[in-house]
Amino acid sequence: MAGNKYEEIAAAAIQLFEQKGYHATSVQDIADAVGLQKGSLYHYIASKEELLLKITHQAISGFVRRLEEIIDTDLPVEERFRQGIRTHMQYITQYLSMSTVLLREAFSLGEPHNEVIRDLTDRYLNLWTQIIDEGVAAGVFYVKDSRIAALTILGSCNWVYRWFKEEGKYTAEEIADQMADLFLNGLKKGRT
Amino acid sequence: MAGNKYEEIAAAAIQLFEQKGYHATSVQDIADAVGLQKGSLYHYIASKEELLLKITHQAISGFVRRLEEIIDTDLPVEERFRQGIRTHMQYITQYLSMSTVLLREAFSLGEPHNEVIRDLTDRYLNLWTQIIDEGVAAGVFYVKDSRIAALTILGSCNWVYRWFKEEGKYTAEEIADQMADLFLNGLKKGRT
Repeated sequence: MAGNKYEEIAAAAIQLFEQKGYHATSVQDIADAVGLQKGSLYHYIASKEELLLKITHQAISGFVRRLEEIIDTDLPVEERFRQGIRTHMQYITQYLSMSTVLLREAFSLGEPHNEVIRDLTDRYLNLWTQIIDEGVAAGVFYVKDSRIAALTILGSCNWVYRWFKEEGKYTAEEIADQMADLFLNGLKKGRT
Repeated sequence: MAGNKYEEIAAAAIQLFEQKGYHATSVQDIADAVGLQKGSLYHYIASKEELLLKITHQAISGFVRRLEEIIDTDLPVEERFRQGIRTHMQYITQYLSMSTVLLREAFSLGEPHNEVIRDLTDRYLNLWTQIIDEGVAAGVFYVKDSRIAALTILGSCNWVYRWFKEEGKYTAEEIADQMADLFLNGLKKGRT
């Protein structure tokens, strides 16, 4: 099936883009990795850039969809915040190579592809800002600027792609809880 | 002077590596940017990779040196923490292109160059871990694992390279203080 072959191509591209970087990976490299002639590969993908778009789109959409599901629950805002961190950590560590391609290589997309990913990235940031705003409205969180707080928290959560492999001491969930503790304490206490 | 010409080449390479990525930048691109023939460029640099090593080495060394100076002061640990965040923010925003090359492109270095940068990056992480450990020893900070806390904080501070340009509302110092407030509150209160 074409679908399965595409999945195989995407998986190979993710590995290559992670290891060598998008620009250093040729279409020939990808063809070699899946045992196809370069010409045959173009039956499945329009271009290397389209492949990068599809991979990064799948990655950021996964982050967005999971957080939307948490936001839509009736859990108290602190618990939604904690679940959001846990889900981010679970997803980024489960799809570490794909997340690395999203977070390190997406800048190589030309327009309008880059804008598609930027918009989804903004949406993810807005969801985090929304949770913080809800906590502030509920009198639970105290921040000077919820967007800066969201960028600060998201930065920590994203940077995990750089170091998670090196840390074998804790599971993704244990790290998520340590991060959530630090941030929830900080958000709840407000300015010193 | 050769020194000045090298600085000009490095500055051009930083701009190109930031905009296009390291792999997508050719030695010819760099030569064109500084008005040299490709052959003449090699009077100043041994290779494109050596240039990436020098740029990233300068960048991470700057982070390390500035934090070491703060650690060596007699300020209370909370104040050293805050000054560390401020200095990181000041440096990363002042040298935003160079920091982007460090944080996004250094993975393209082959060994043993990659190891040089990794070691300095570890040293920077260790300095942050040391500040947190000192806070814990002083009974001011409460964390489950100081290294995870340091990675969390450093992630936020590094991620700034991605979004600082888009935010015109606050100065680097104002953002640093919002981050420091959030983290200091989180570190001081301990587990909920």
